[in-house]
Amino acid sequence: MNKKVVMGLSGGMDSATMAAYFLSKGYEVFPVSFDYGSKHNQYERKTAEQFANYYNLKLQKVELPFIGQLFKSNLLKTGGEIPEGHYESENMSQTVVPGRNIIFISIMAGYAWSIGASYIAVGVHAGDHAIYADCREEFIASMNASILNGTEDKVRLIAPFQNLDKAGILEIGHSLFIDGYDVGVPYQFTRTCYKDQELSCGKCGSCQERLEGFQKIGRQDPIQYEE
Amino acid sequence: MNKKVVMGLSGGMDSATMAAYFLSKGYEVFPVSFDYGSKHNQYERKTAEQFANYYNLKLQKVELPFIGQLFKSNLLKTGGEIPEGHYESENMSQTVVPGRNIIFISIMAGYAWSIGASYIAVGVHAGDHAIYADCREEFIASMNASILNGTEDKVRLIAPFQNLDKAGILEIGHSLFIDGYDVGVPYQFTRTCYKDQELSCGKCGSCQERLEGFQKIGRQDPIQYEE
Repeated sequence: MNKKVVMGLSGGMDSATMAAYFLSKGYEVFPVSFDYGSKHNQYERKTAEQFANYYNLKLQKVELPFIGQLFKSNLLKTGGEIPEGHYESENMSQTVVPGRNIIFISIMAGYAWSIGASYIAVGVHAGDHAIYADCREEFIASMNASILNGTEDKVRLIAPFQNLDKAGILEIGHSLFIDGYDVGVPYQFTRTCYKDQELSCGKCGSCQERLEGFQKIGRQDPIQYEE
Repeated sequence: MNKKVVMGLSGGMDSATMAAYFLSKGYEVFPVSFDYGSKHNQYERKTAEQFANYYNLKLQKVELPFIGQLFKSNLLKTGGEIPEGHYESENMSQTVVPGRNIIFISIMAGYAWSIGASYIAVGVHAGDHAIYADCREEFIASMNASILNGTEDKVRLIAPFQNLDKAGILEIGHSLFIDGYDVGVPYQFTRTCYKDQELSCGKCGSCQERLEGFQKIGRQDPIQYEE
């Protein structure tokens, strides 16, 4: 096994923290930005690019137009309104994109095998589990077995933040040290909002969960919110 | 569980037989044609369309341009020459597209979940096992667990031909009965060749395996070969 890791870089705080986490451990990081037709993609990808540039990483862009064509979700341009309110509430389940993580992981597995990277990593965390089946521990475990079986044991799947909440991830993020950089993840180059607008709304379940995380660790979120 | 099944329809004889197999059992079949940038795709897809039309199925077309962009394989337009010779020989491993099946299965899982189909099916068979890790029994088993876990137990993966060889599949195919159709799969609307040409070459590993299958069951392959 080598120290190369392929990972999704969504523009959000979880995957950003994970990228920095692996960089701080001396890994070579190969970030991938997926465009699956979400409403917020243009802002997400721009943010992911800013983050990748900060650490001098090459962001691989992967377009998945079939998701909008085949799948139904309010997170997609082809779907209905994004609900407001808390992440764990019933109506947030309208934002599930069926099998999104399964697909991302599979593509990363093939890519990792192609470039000879031993690992693929996903930034799923404890807060994702309630709504997203393909973020739960048993899914990650069986998917790791599938990836190992499907790649002649060349690639394995890891989810280092799987038992942390947003606050736990932010705690780690603020203490990471990477040679030549300031201590801590540049959270100004991250964006969590599900809405189709430049400034984060601060109200959708995703924004609320982020803001609660910063509050819990007693730090100011460096990004600007609407009003 | 309902009688709806999503499956890849490659244009080849295995997936064609599988589609007919499920139709003969009264399933509603949702075929998907993946374009992953293979050299032979234009002929494959045309054949898959002819086959789908024969049974009045709607073929869902999914484009995967990222495979040619990220992955290396001689099966791809972006790769080297397709080797001739027997399927099981060393040089056929140059035709492996890393993680191709993992990716197809994942996309079909999300699609099946979206349309409320209980099953996804793949036409892998015993002859695929030697070269393609993501066609082996242990991969299918762990991937089924992953799909179940990732879709709230809504979708399961089946591989009905997993222990058959080409001849076994052809035996089944020639005996299938579907209301309103002739007995047997219309193999004239299938194509197995890996080469980038209208007429099948009869020489690549894939053609050879098909021809051996027909020979073994004592039937004539209805498609036309070069020279």
